Amino acid sequence: MIDTGARITMDAIKNALRGALDDCQDGYSLPQAFYNDDAIFMADLQAIFQKEWIFVGPECELPNAGDYVMMTIYDTPIIVLRDHDGVIRAFHNSCRHRGSRLCDKTRGHTGRLVCPYHQWTYELSGALVSTRYMGDAFDQDKFPLKPVHVTSVEGLVYICLAETAPDIDTFRAAVTPYIKPHAPQRTKIVHESVIVEEANWKLVIENNRECYHCAGNHPELLVSLVEMALPNDARFGDEFRIMEEKGKLWDSLGLPHAPVDGGTEFRCIRLPFRDGAYSMTMDGKPASKKLLGDLIEPDLGSVRAFRIPNNWHHFLSEMTIHFRVLPLGPNKTEVRTTWCVHEDAVEGWDYDIEHLSRVWIETNDQDKRLAEENQRGTKSLGYEPGPYSEISEFMILNFLDWYRGAMENWLREPGRQLQAAE
Amino acid sequence: MIDTGARITMDAIKNALRGALDDCQDGYSLPQAFYNDDAIFMADLQAIFQKEWIFVGPECELPNAGDYVMMTIYDTPIIVLRDHDGVIRAFHNSCRHRGSRLCDKTRGHTGRLVCPYHQWTYELSGALVSTRYMGDAFDQDKFPLKPVHVTSVEGLVYICLAETAPDIDTFRAAVTPYIKPHAPQRTKIVHESVIVEEANWKLVIENNRECYHCAGNHPELLVSLVEMALPNDARFGDEFRIMEEKGKLWDSLGLPHAPVDGGTEFRCIRLPFRDGAYSMTMDGKPASKKLLGDLIEPDLGSVRAFRIPNNWHHFLSEMTIHFRVLPLGPNKTEVRTTWCVHEDAVEGWDYDIEHLSRVWIETNDQDKRLAEENQRGTKSLGYEPGPYSEISEFMILNFLDWYRGAMENWLREPGRQLQAAE
Amino acid sequence: MIDTGARITMDAIKNALRGALDDCQDGYSLPQAFYNDDAIFMADLQAIFQKEWIFVGPECELPNAGDYVMMTIYDTPIIVLRDHDGVIRAFHNSCRHRGSRLCDKTRGHTGRLVCPYHQWTYELSGALVSTRYMGDAFDQDKFPLKPVHVTSVEGLVYICLAETAPDIDTFRAAVTPYIKPHAPQRTKIVHESVIVEEANWKLVIENNRECYHCAGNHPELLVSLVEMALPNDARFGDEFRIMEEKGKLWDSLGLPHAPVDGGTEFRCIRLPFRDGAYSMTMDGKPASKKLLGDLIEPDLGSVRAFRIPNNWHHFLSEMTIHFRVLPLGPNKTEVRTTWCVHEDAVEGWDYDIEHLSRVWIETNDQDKRLAEENQRGTKSLGYEPGPYSEISEFMILNFLDWYRGAMENWLREPGRQLQAAE
Repeated sequence: MIDTGARITMDAIKNALRGALDDCQDGYSLPQAFYNDDAIFMADLQAIFQKEWIFVGPECELPNAGDYVMMTIYDTPIIVLRDHDGVIRAFHNSCRHRGSRLCDKTRGHTGRLVCPYHQWTYELSGALVSTRYMGDAFDQDKFPLKPVHVTSVEGLVYICLAETAPDIDTFRAAVTPYIKPHAPQRTKIVHESVIVEEANWKLVIENNRECYHCAGNHPELLVSLVEMALPNDARFGDEFRIMEEKGKLWDSLGLPHAPVDGGTEFRCIRLPFRDGAYSMTMDGKPASKKLLGDLIEPDLGSVRAFRIPNNWHHFLSEMTIHFRVLPLGPNKTEVRTTWCVHEDAVEGWDYDIEHLSRVWIETNDQDKRLAEENQRGTKSLGYEPGPYSEISEFMILNFLDWYRGAMENWLREPGRQLQAAE
Repeated sequence: MIDTGARITMDAIKNALRGALDDCQDGYSLPQAFYNDDAIFMADLQAIFQKEWIFVGPECELPNAGDYVMMTIYDTPIIVLRDHDGVIRAFHNSCRHRGSRLCDKTRGHTGRLVCPYHQWTYELSGALVSTRYMGDAFDQDKFPLKPVHVTSVEGLVYICLAETAPDIDTFRAAVTPYIKPHAPQRTKIVHESVIVEEANWKLVIENNRECYHCAGNHPELLVSLVEMALPNDARFGDEFRIMEEKGKLWDSLGLPHAPVDGGTEFRCIRLPFRDGAYSMTMDGKPASKKLLGDLIEPDLGSVRAFRIPNNWHHFLSEMTIHFRVLPLGPNKTEVRTTWCVHEDAVEGWDYDIEHLSRVWIETNDQDKRLAEENQRGTKSLGYEPGPYSEISEFMILNFLDWYRGAMENWLREPGRQLQAAE
Repeated sequence: MIDTGARITMDAIKNALRGALDDCQDGYSLPQAFYNDDAIFMADLQAIFQKEWIFVGPECELPNAGDYVMMTIYDTPIIVLRDHDGVIRAFHNSCRHRGSRLCDKTRGHTGRLVCPYHQWTYELSGALVSTRYMGDAFDQDKFPLKPVHVTSVEGLVYICLAETAPDIDTFRAAVTPYIKPHAPQRTKIVHESVIVEEANWKLVIENNRECYHCAGNHPELLVSLVEMALPNDARFGDEFRIMEEKGKLWDSLGLPHAPVDGGTEFRCIRLPFRDGAYSMTMDGKPASKKLLGDLIEPDLGSVRAFRIPNNWHHFLSEMTIHFRVLPLGPNKTEVRTTWCVHEDAVEGWDYDIEHLSRVWIETNDQDKRLAEENQRGTKSLGYEPGPYSEISEFMILNFLDWYRGAMENWLREPGRQLQAAE
């Protein structure tokens, strides 16, 4: 018996997506297919993860020429490196000889890229500079590594797999004043966690876009965090007064804090922690004695930034935390979290890993469980899209507006798709 | 490379099933597709597991108001509970907010059902009684838990996912006189085993429907069991005399034993054990000193009942054993076995878990191996349906008559199918 | 939510293959689909693994009547045995009753084949000779085991699942003079390794067809092996002189060594090891003190034979090594290696398992890693077929010529395909 999945056709993908989009109801969670179907997942990859700017990690992961990191967007491995001129570059991690991956490590340092298979050798610029036994007629100039769009937004590295990358400068212009004082380029990664959630990537993002679930699930996070999404959030009393007070302090320091109008694309705002809390730690005390950049005031709450489709960030006075979401399958998603402190901070003296990372380690585990239970329920015959809270879940509504728009746009695109999907 | 299974269409499922049914030959095992194809498996779910009454477990698992159990029929999680009025109810285990599973435990006890995600709270009646931040316009009466049909047949709990449930009262009327004397509602579960067999659910059922394989495989079971399917089974000599003798004893006690005409839907009969054996134990001795209900005679053989599609039972004088089969995939099936004794029996005094469970633990393991080898062979290019023994395998022939009929009926059904399959 | 892979149709398979073949470019690695698509994998099974002669193992694995081995070609289990007349036979390992596998062990010894399920019993000739309860009308002559083509090529056992087997006598005639002096039938298996590579079977074969990758990856192998494919290989100086010298020695012993013209079907040649090396061991010393057959000269290099689609071999003066490749999925392949020495050699005295097996254990592990990295790269959106070296990779070009031809032939075949694929 030979029985297997057929290669899904572009028509089948588009029909499935068209039908599912028609089933959507404003203000309600998505129909079942969006969280479970292979066809919709394929559409997500093509319409979003192969078109949008995808967050890789903080630029401080590549401090020196020759440093590289590797990430994989579904089946596509990418190498991001700093070349000998200090320029960040990104390439498809696939040798031009027979396609082998060049790098198999998550990060490393190298002078040249040498394929482990037959030692074809590339400069950090991507140029092929050495082969053996390829004969005199072989023109190695025709076989450079294939480049991928890459940019650093004030220390946040993004890549884009599309032929023509969409705009990222609106985001850059908007967030730079907020995050530049935290000097992300002068940080170092001191802790990293990579977890796999058995849930669709959109459920992971939805989970991040509301704090409606915080009270019942995140005791560690709520030591510092207020279930507040906007400075004038109607749900709060005392916290609202905190915002007024802190706003004056931050104004006096020249630190912007008002919400940026990022539409459905991104969010950027500085919000205070609970009274007396300086950081996202179990005791609210700073995670590092050494403040970031040239900051001198520890009481800065956090700049909270997210951007579609796959990343969110906290910039505190003494620490930054970066979250990266990558789809592994219709029901499987990787979440990487990186914690950064001042590049000169000293472990054991300025910071302690357990103290610094505990809150988000616990919170991520809790969110993983929540997303997985959410996923299990959406698989049911009994699942029916339900109503979001306009008070507590408006950022999910924004996310879904963006998502549905992106999918509609993709359906309208004429002409040929990426080769791999045909 | 993006390459994945396409969403199977209802037409593709029906065509595959139509073709496979046309290949069937009376008296022969099913064509390969029935044991292996994804499309046929999808059809099985829709035509059978989403339409028929599915056995959940013994009612004694829910002794008190607020007790619940959770089971999953393929991807559909169901919660079955006893409400504050003592009524057994069943609901889809999916919150009406964003679909999260409400219960993640196999069993438990609760006063209300609270979703772990955002604490939407439901009464045991299914009514939504508490949310937060949903605004004044939100009408929580519109979002009760979705009910599922549920019934207890003299202590055996069944649910049905169909909109309109099929008849179960014929079964109820027929089996009640046989099992009522064993008072299943006054038992307690003292042991449970859940195993996963790498085999199609129909191969698991076929294995259960004949004892042709017993002699070569089940030494522990054959301490008590006779390879006999009917009181006048032509294969037996001495055992046939045992039946005559026991029949008189049971008549004198007012215990029915003749085979019930359940057609292809169910079977119910009381049959004796081997001479000298009182129970399905390694030594043939009773598994519990305390007899069930008000029984005073230990020598009752067992009432053997099965019902399509997923359950069979033994009711002995001092123990009941219940088997539940749930499909997990075309080649993967869960089998749960529960052992019950009188609710007042005392462990260590009246019964010993090892003594009580050993025979069926071993037998289940043996059947798992047999079903898996059967599965492996049916995957082969060399597999060709073979002839059943009309003497030893007539209950499989009945099962397949029922199965083929159910599938034919489903193909003939007009109009729309369950939402999830379209 | 029910969502699964549809049963792939023959039309879909052929269309996918047709399209992929049209994308092929001479001299370049295959398009992505050939290494990743389910449809192409299905085509590979039907066009190649269900049609060609497939290597099972050395005949010395079946020394006595009643010895059997079991292998599985994808989902199809086959039993190969030596019957009471000493004849090697092969059968589908699926009982004619309900299809159960008869044998579940990789190898064993038996007088008859008894199905574990219901004890249907077959002679080693395949004849069904005993059943129970099948009734008087049952004609057991109609239910013999289904035979499969089998042959031994001078001690190498091959089977063929096709109705009509292709020619293997050209191969037999060509290789017999080379391998007969090594007397494979008078060897015994002393070590076996089975590894699973997460790579398409063609990448495993491509890896075997060139030594371009050896210098950078196989230090243990290069103790003995010269990166030389032909006696007059242009890449070598000293080694070329070794060939001249050894050629004279082998001529004097009557041992053929010139390359055989096997077209794209097979290769057979005797090549020397590095100066001073007698065997594929870490020190170059013989793996066994006892030479094979009636050989008296240890300095014989190795006869290197491969045959499409799934096997290659080394015949040394004191050891033979056999490699068998079986596809388990589009990205998963089993490689079995068996090491044989003279049947009278004594472990601990004549040979040591560690000394004998180390080089290829290490080399296989290295090749597994290379094939898996190659696989990962070919999955990428960035993968594009690249150019082979005509100097170092000409045997891959031969392999791909054969492969593409075999697939074109299969597409041209009229009429019905194997039952399982329809």
